[in-house]
Amino acid sequence: MIIVLKPNSSRETVDHVLECIEAMGLTPHLSQGVSRTIIGVIGDESKLRAAPLQAIAGVEQVLPILKPFKLASREFHPEDLVINLKGVRIGGGSLAMIAGPCAVESEPLLTEVAEQVRAAGANILRGGAFKPRTSPYSFQGLGREGLKILRAVGDRFGMPVVTEVMDPRQVEMVVEHADMIQIGARNMQNFDLLKEVGRTPIPVLLKRGMSATVKDLLMSTEYILSQGNRRVILCERGVRTFEDSTRNTLDLSIVPNVKGLSHLPIIVDPSHATGRPDLIPSMALAAVAAGADGVHIEVHSCPEKALSDGPQALVPAQYAELMTRIRAVARAVGSTIAEPEPSAEPALLHS
Amino acid sequence: MIIVLKPNSSRETVDHVLECIEAMGLTPHLSQGVSRTIIGVIGDESKLRAAPLQAIAGVEQVLPILKPFKLASREFHPEDLVINLKGVRIGGGSLAMIAGPCAVESEPLLTEVAEQVRAAGANILRGGAFKPRTSPYSFQGLGREGLKILRAVGDRFGMPVVTEVMDPRQVEMVVEHADMIQIGARNMQNFDLLKEVGRTPIPVLLKRGMSATVKDLLMSTEYILSQGNRRVILCERGVRTFEDSTRNTLDLSIVPNVKGLSHLPIIVDPSHATGRPDLIPSMALAAVAAGADGVHIEVHSCPEKALSDGPQALVPAQYAELMTRIRAVARAVGSTIAEPEPSAEPALLHS
Amino acid sequence: MIIVLKPNSSRETVDHVLECIEAMGLTPHLSQGVSRTIIGVIGDESKLRAAPLQAIAGVEQVLPILKPFKLASREFHPEDLVINLKGVRIGGGSLAMIAGPCAVESEPLLTEVAEQVRAAGANILRGGAFKPRTSPYSFQGLGREGLKILRAVGDRFGMPVVTEVMDPRQVEMVVEHADMIQIGARNMQNFDLLKEVGRTPIPVLLKRGMSATVKDLLMSTEYILSQGNRRVILCERGVRTFEDSTRNTLDLSIVPNVKGLSHLPIIVDPSHATGRPDLIPSMALAAVAAGADGVHIEVHSCPEKALSDGPQALVPAQYAELMTRIRAVARAVGSTIAEPEPSAEPALLHS
Amino acid sequence: MIIVLKPNSSRETVDHVLECIEAMGLTPHLSQGVSRTIIGVIGDESKLRAAPLQAIAGVEQVLPILKPFKLASREFHPEDLVINLKGVRIGGGSLAMIAGPCAVESEPLLTEVAEQVRAAGANILRGGAFKPRTSPYSFQGLGREGLKILRAVGDRFGMPVVTEVMDPRQVEMVVEHADMIQIGARNMQNFDLLKEVGRTPIPVLLKRGMSATVKDLLMSTEYILSQGNRRVILCERGVRTFEDSTRNTLDLSIVPNVKGLSHLPIIVDPSHATGRPDLIPSMALAAVAAGADGVHIEVHSCPEKALSDGPQALVPAQYAELMTRIRAVARAVGSTIAEPEPSAEPALLHS
Repeated sequence: MIIVLKPNSSRETVDHVLECIEAMGLTPHLSQGVSRTIIGVIGDESKLRAAPLQAIAGVEQVLPILKPFKLASREFHPEDLVINLKGVRIGGGSLAMIAGPCAVESEPLLTEVAEQVRAAGANILRGGAFKPRTSPYSFQGLGREGLKILRAVGDRFGMPVVTEVMDPRQVEMVVEHADMIQIGARNMQNFDLLKEVGRTPIPVLLKRGMSATVKDLLMSTEYILSQGNRRVILCERGVRTFEDSTRNTLDLSIVPNVKGLSHLPIIVDPSHATGRPDLIPSMALAAVAAGADGVHIEVHSCPEKALSDGPQALVPAQYAELMTRIRAVARAVGSTIAEPEPSAEPALLHS
Repeated sequence: MIIVLKPNSSRETVDHVLECIEAMGLTPHLSQGVSRTIIGVIGDESKLRAAPLQAIAGVEQVLPILKPFKLASREFHPEDLVINLKGVRIGGGSLAMIAGPCAVESEPLLTEVAEQVRAAGANILRGGAFKPRTSPYSFQGLGREGLKILRAVGDRFGMPVVTEVMDPRQVEMVVEHADMIQIGARNMQNFDLLKEVGRTPIPVLLKRGMSATVKDLLMSTEYILSQGNRRVILCERGVRTFEDSTRNTLDLSIVPNVKGLSHLPIIVDPSHATGRPDLIPSMALAAVAAGADGVHIEVHSCPEKALSDGPQALVPAQYAELMTRIRAVARAVGSTIAEPEPSAEPALLHS
Repeated sequence: MIIVLKPNSSRETVDHVLECIEAMGLTPHLSQGVSRTIIGVIGDESKLRAAPLQAIAGVEQVLPILKPFKLASREFHPEDLVINLKGVRIGGGSLAMIAGPCAVESEPLLTEVAEQVRAAGANILRGGAFKPRTSPYSFQGLGREGLKILRAVGDRFGMPVVTEVMDPRQVEMVVEHADMIQIGARNMQNFDLLKEVGRTPIPVLLKRGMSATVKDLLMSTEYILSQGNRRVILCERGVRTFEDSTRNTLDLSIVPNVKGLSHLPIIVDPSHATGRPDLIPSMALAAVAAGADGVHIEVHSCPEKALSDGPQALVPAQYAELMTRIRAVARAVGSTIAEPEPSAEPALLHS
Repeated sequence: MIIVLKPNSSRETVDHVLECIEAMGLTPHLSQGVSRTIIGVIGDESKLRAAPLQAIAGVEQVLPILKPFKLASREFHPEDLVINLKGVRIGGGSLAMIAGPCAVESEPLLTEVAEQVRAAGANILRGGAFKPRTSPYSFQGLGREGLKILRAVGDRFGMPVVTEVMDPRQVEMVVEHADMIQIGARNMQNFDLLKEVGRTPIPVLLKRGMSATVKDLLMSTEYILSQGNRRVILCERGVRTFEDSTRNTLDLSIVPNVKGLSHLPIIVDPSHATGRPDLIPSMALAAVAAGADGVHIEVHSCPEKALSDGPQALVPAQYAELMTRIRAVARAVGSTIAEPEPSAEPALLHS
């Protein structure tokens, strides 16, 4: 932590700041120059971070040096984390190919999509039972019935399943039915929900908030990890900018950025990021080339009849064609697409 | 709703779109030009909004005409809503002056602040018992104990109290102790929480998300209103931009923008928006001049010892000086600062 | 300047960085802690700023301490700068009220607007002769003819005039006709143009770029000041954000922010910022309350026939009503609206 | 163009709008519903675009249907444009690999870099002679001397050269020495400069402004194309967002987005976008996978001694390794890296 004092600080100000630091049991290093006085504090930065040093009269800037997250940091866990989801390995060059409709609408519809995406090479099935919709008048999901359908269809095609949870009171029910829990972008800083999923035994797919920095995302991860659940996969899904021809702006630089800071896998969702089927394939290929640990794509047999987010879904034939192109790019960058093991033991015994 | 077809759409495409619209029981109006075909649909736009028309092959753009929110709209309720919080009138030219520390830390500390802000003219006391902190290692609030302190101190100085709720499971407890519930920016799209507070009998102070548009904010309001609770106050607290010398960028244009679209009161929080005590007073004055229905300011007796957000708090003497200047600007624009009625009946019988 | 080394830096790395600093004739201060090594450099920060220290292997972060601008800084010039434009004082509590149409369209039209805004209290007349239009097919301005009309109409009503320059080759011609030169938002970092206007004897109104930080704006100012022209007025006109119901997002916090950093006056343009006549009055009042040194508003007698930006103009009657309200707020915050001195000598002898 | 009237518009308002449209020689189509009246205008949209319909009392929204750019649109030129720069084909699956230092610093230094990037497979040499620097106190480039060095070194290694122009008065000199002119992000809306390069015979590399939408970028292109120069290459170099760990946020979705709208080639600059050498390689691979027509990378032999932007440059060995990986990804997506023809005739006879 470095504390920069205002120009021409009085001796009293300097002494007051030094006393504050010493009162926390830390040792300050004073550097006095012609125009500025700087105080370096080497030690347990977390003690200082909690203290509102910025509020001390005479202090101009407080510059933290260490990263504010710990369990999510690569310094804590130097090797890439590889998560084994019913035999599907995610991370360390093994790619999650998550596909399925935005919402679980009915068993026949989900079966139709699942069969086709599985045949095309998808290894994890997605589908929402609880839907965060901006309008209270839109379809809100089938709830428990949707979870049962998702579980049944996933089992039928040997695919582990992931679904979103929005309310701490739903967590228990979702854990009973799913292999991985998704936290949506709107809930990235719903801290009580993060703590709740941090106490479950299954992996968590945490989506980046629409205006969250990389640091914010990793701090939210810390909420989950600090409760005991160490299996988190991050997901980039676009951030808000001034560009109005796409739903959001996909920030692929977060992929290598996170890989430098953390050992956690990170995947990319080009469907929500762009909101445009004509842009999804290029962005999926770019994500794999950038080193992402997987791609999350919405697929619907009949987007024009989808109850949620139809306009951004690919049809199964488009997904199959994209998978062929993804395989070529994955080979070029040395990644492989994981295969599920249908006979695997329950997910929570793995990894 | 207006549907613009792609250039040179075939007769089949046009017919397909017309059929889709008629299948919903609506009447399309076709306009064919040299380069484009446009279909206007006049009728119940909500039916169309739910349908993924954008996903129909041949459709280039779908342009909604009506606003997607209803209960929050001024067309539904032409008069300004005035909320009476234990005698403090908010809206219609009567200003809420909400002040207090970020977090309730102890009864003596809150008493000290409350006494001074009340004397300076504040009419509502704030203080957090549950704190949304980006780091799980920061102070998380006193919980129920904090609520009790807030209630007791508010009663002592005849001030109604407002406090934040983060988890649907906390709502009942907060309603027992507070006069108004705050939903923080990070939870603006926590839809289950919105529904839960929509079923309570006390007013809700809903903060704008860090990257929420005006429309997003009003749609979140709709979640609360549609559950029966019609008393919502909106709060601008800054949005995320590229500017890095302030915590966020305060968007005061939302004040007249919301007033055109909705009958709900809107207040401004310059403390969180700027994060800088040197900028708070100017932004508070600007908010009142812009027509805001109140100002929400963090005040702490000793910001350098605050357990949460100390660096952005004013000290009581600064707040008192600011209130003098606010009164002058309020007079200039024809607003008045509401006075609490200590002997008033419980809040939920009002409005 | 503070240089933070990567964790566990080797002795060689530390020595290499120390040598680099000493080679610049500066003295490093080394602080070694358990997890990090920090090197403070007190001295002529500009030498270090030019050096790409960040590129040295082993360096994690380089944190500048001093501000990168000098002539624009309040440390260089502690008193508020007051600019005298033909008797109209701008700065130090005296407000510029700049009004007029977006573009000079004809002498009768400009005369009609000028007469009315002058009667309402405007003290500076604006009008574009060279127009930066996003489309090459839009009206591009009358050029020299427009400048002559502006000069003549300004003289007739005793108002100093301001107009935009877009190309270094137009500067001489504009200086012949105008009392103040405007640099538009799109040219805020057109460095050759900034240098050119920095060599003229008349004040410059520099608009903030659509995505410029406060620091960027002050660095652009430095380009003008360093050429000798010390009379610059800054202008906030909105920044780009995700909000799509307004043209841009007006950032009023830049007003007190700039006043802390610099002695230069700063005014606000709510017309371009919002693009909506229904929001302009509230934002103009808020600007004055925030301490701005003036307001820049587009006024057109018949917005529906304007050749440029008609939809965002106020009609003269709206402007007159707004001026009444602005006067009330100005009084409340202790500002006054400057009056032009019609018989004053030419602008360039002033200040 | 679609014109939506305010709710409950009077007969007079409707008639007034209809008259305005007819006065322009166009035919309105009226659709009246229960809550709204909509007027469609099919015809020459450019006439309407110039008219400030939004300013007419009673008009709520004006929705343009056609794209505002013409010469830049794929409807005007359905085939991909392929630009031949001294034998290097850019576009249509043939990739420009532009490399070199930020600024031309000296002939030996540029020779050293050029030799190595040419050996690694770069096909176009870059280097700045005029530098847009945010600070007037930073190195501003060698000017004409830099252009001569660039030309000589390019010729020696058989590489066409590209360099930036910032001022309309420099255009003639740059055209004498370079094979392609670059317009930097800060000048994307310097309309006089765009017109000036639109009259030259050599291709233009136009960088996206830091807060420009796709539409803004294509409108700026229109300024160049409409002057006669039809050879423009677009370049994505990152946009400004709230993320503070990278210089800007690279928006790769613009690649397929532009390809849908326009026939012009588009390349990507990950150096300026990220500002971080650790992120550049992944973003370069992603750009190629996304379908970009080339990659623009800064390379410097000794970044820690660079006079400009050293911290973001790769060293030649890193560039060579990256080129090997780029070739693999290019093959996977069916692209090829163009080879220069050293003996080719002057650039302006091509294409």
